[in-house]
Amino acid sequence: MDDQKLIQEKIAQATDILREFDIDVWLTFVRETPLSPDPVLDFILGQHVTWHSAFLISRQGQHTAIVGHYDAENVRNLGAYNQIVGYHQGIGDHLRAALDTLQPREIAINYSTSDVAADGLSHGMYLTLHQILRDTPHAGRLMSAENIIGALRGRKSPTEVARMREAIAITQELFDEVENFARPGMTQRQIASFVRQRIDEMDLGYAWDQQYNPIVTCGPQSAIGHAMPGDVVLEKGHTLHLDLGVKRYGYCSDLQRMWYVLKDGETSAPADVQRAFNVVRGAIKASEQALKPGTPGWQVDEIARDYVTDNGYPEYMHALGHLLGRSAHDGATVLGPRWEKYAVICERLVEVGNVFTLELHVPVPGRGIMSLEEDVLVTANGIEYLSQPQTELRFIRP
Amino acid sequence: MDDQKLIQEKIAQATDILREFDIDVWLTFVRETPLSPDPVLDFILGQHVTWHSAFLISRQGQHTAIVGHYDAENVRNLGAYNQIVGYHQGIGDHLRAALDTLQPREIAINYSTSDVAADGLSHGMYLTLHQILRDTPHAGRLMSAENIIGALRGRKSPTEVARMREAIAITQELFDEVENFARPGMTQRQIASFVRQRIDEMDLGYAWDQQYNPIVTCGPQSAIGHAMPGDVVLEKGHTLHLDLGVKRYGYCSDLQRMWYVLKDGETSAPADVQRAFNVVRGAIKASEQALKPGTPGWQVDEIARDYVTDNGYPEYMHALGHLLGRSAHDGATVLGPRWEKYAVICERLVEVGNVFTLELHVPVPGRGIMSLEEDVLVTANGIEYLSQPQTELRFIRP
Repeated sequence: MDDQKLIQEKIAQATDILREFDIDVWLTFVRETPLSPDPVLDFILGQHVTWHSAFLISRQGQHTAIVGHYDAENVRNLGAYNQIVGYHQGIGDHLRAALDTLQPREIAINYSTSDVAADGLSHGMYLTLHQILRDTPHAGRLMSAENIIGALRGRKSPTEVARMREAIAITQELFDEVENFARPGMTQRQIASFVRQRIDEMDLGYAWDQQYNPIVTCGPQSAIGHAMPGDVVLEKGHTLHLDLGVKRYGYCSDLQRMWYVLKDGETSAPADVQRAFNVVRGAIKASEQALKPGTPGWQVDEIARDYVTDNGYPEYMHALGHLLGRSAHDGATVLGPRWEKYAVICERLVEVGNVFTLELHVPVPGRGIMSLEEDVLVTANGIEYLSQPQTELRFIRP
Repeated sequence: MDDQKLIQEKIAQATDILREFDIDVWLTFVRETPLSPDPVLDFILGQHVTWHSAFLISRQGQHTAIVGHYDAENVRNLGAYNQIVGYHQGIGDHLRAALDTLQPREIAINYSTSDVAADGLSHGMYLTLHQILRDTPHAGRLMSAENIIGALRGRKSPTEVARMREAIAITQELFDEVENFARPGMTQRQIASFVRQRIDEMDLGYAWDQQYNPIVTCGPQSAIGHAMPGDVVLEKGHTLHLDLGVKRYGYCSDLQRMWYVLKDGETSAPADVQRAFNVVRGAIKASEQALKPGTPGWQVDEIARDYVTDNGYPEYMHALGHLLGRSAHDGATVLGPRWEKYAVICERLVEVGNVFTLELHVPVPGRGIMSLEEDVLVTANGIEYLSQPQTELRFIRP
């Protein structure tokens, strides 16, 4: 995969974002990144560095990397920085000199209380930076880069969208394989093991911890949420639900699919199961209308949530959607209700280039849960499905 | 692998360390650890958590985990915490309550300017913690946990040493395979690819970034250091050097081995090559004497460094040794010279249970470098080699 191209795209995008937000310099400050990774490095470096290292991106398009001399050659080969300093003794003088040249009014650095993806600066490194900038005017110009990073992560470049399409397509193929594999009498564990084996055979990554990936839910006893697939047996007349995300070339899918396990003689699902499917699919479909650039996240969630409760089902106790990308929960904006825990992030506006999940569930008493999840790209006019949405209930045959 | 046992061992050890250092409570405070990992979690949790989570270890042996309710079951299954709180709304009240119960005089938290492995608290999480503890006496009791973490990482438990022995044994077998594989005329790249293929086949991890692992150096033109294996060809009359580290069950090896490429008709190395080997091996051997509990790191380095220069070779421009464990550069103490960059960490004292590398090189003009690296465990009386030390130069035959 051409990570060089991806990083050049994202650094150019970061420069545009600095202009848009009227911020002079964005500084990423790291050390020994294998042990202490800043999640933003995937977008602006794509490799590890050992000694204290600084990556400065300015609104004027000056891109400076200050790294240990051992790492300079590899950063040079990246072709994304127009000034590369490989130092021998210490980073302090070089960093101060670079800032003196740029004379920034603001220096955005990677900390955030609300967005973990924008919080890659450790507290120790924050103290070190203050030490280096002590007695300079730069010390008073530090600010959070959370808005820059939120936009940079959230607005997918063409290369990023292409990688996600591939991860999603593979995930859909895996669901087809599960449908051929799963039979009544199997345990959740057997189904999950089958999926993991296929993921490993295809040399894919996991979009989240493989202990909980895939989540396999079947029948009314299955726990919902971040639980490990256990010994519950897939039974006729129950639902089967998978929540699966793979990682391909660093980018994630995150999809949920639903099956009904046909009883002997059945050719379709009973009314309660079918109705639950229709409502979940209907709620996702209804939310599509609202998912447009400029809409606050909570408005999108509200439409789906109201659709569910208007149809007599209990509301889902989570957000309708989250950003997807490098990680399964990728960045700030959430399509969620205005609960305390989503207070700030569900006010954020949907942007062109965002990739969101749309996901919700309702219970089907005595049968299990009904839960779907799609992945969609926000365009200037609305959305484009990156997944092939599940519009019909699927079946596991005896 | 029984991670549960490892974590129970390390948490018990942490409790002892708190008593030794006279600190009441050690608090690890994290969120969304797949994106924002604190390196210390490998030792006290061994799994991921999503919401804001707090792990409190007290000198009295009270071990409290406060996690999102979705994660509580998995933490319970670990069997390492005697109080587990799974919260629904927010962590603040629970964390304050836990601290009110413990009434600690000091609360050590994970930040450090000097030790990256003890610097897992992000600046955003530091601000959040201050917000939570505002208007309580606990806010004024925060301190760095760097000494606790340095000791916890540095003093290997029996389970940790057993895993490292296994990683080292496999690495030595890989060197034997290289010796059978490598022939004059091959490039560095071919040799590195062979090793990586074997690592992947054996489902091992890499102790450091696989772009630079193994480092293959041959002949006088090969760059030294963190460079990628290139197109330099292995030639008769030159030296071949490999620096390789694998990861097995989360624990690393880090070894360097040397070969001389025999010319047609030769059965041993020429005098200049043999002498370089003897001096490098001799320097490592000399340093063994000093490597005892209670010795500052620089004293061990000085013996090897003097040995090299006394024998007429230029001094090596790096430290003699670093701690090894979960990562290739694992924790604080360094066996290094009193240069500015090693100023604090080479004053630290060697401790029982530390695993150090011993590594250094000299140039062999016109032939390449001569560089060895061994892995040793510090015991009460001195050291035990975990690697089978290279005491004779090895040969690549035509």
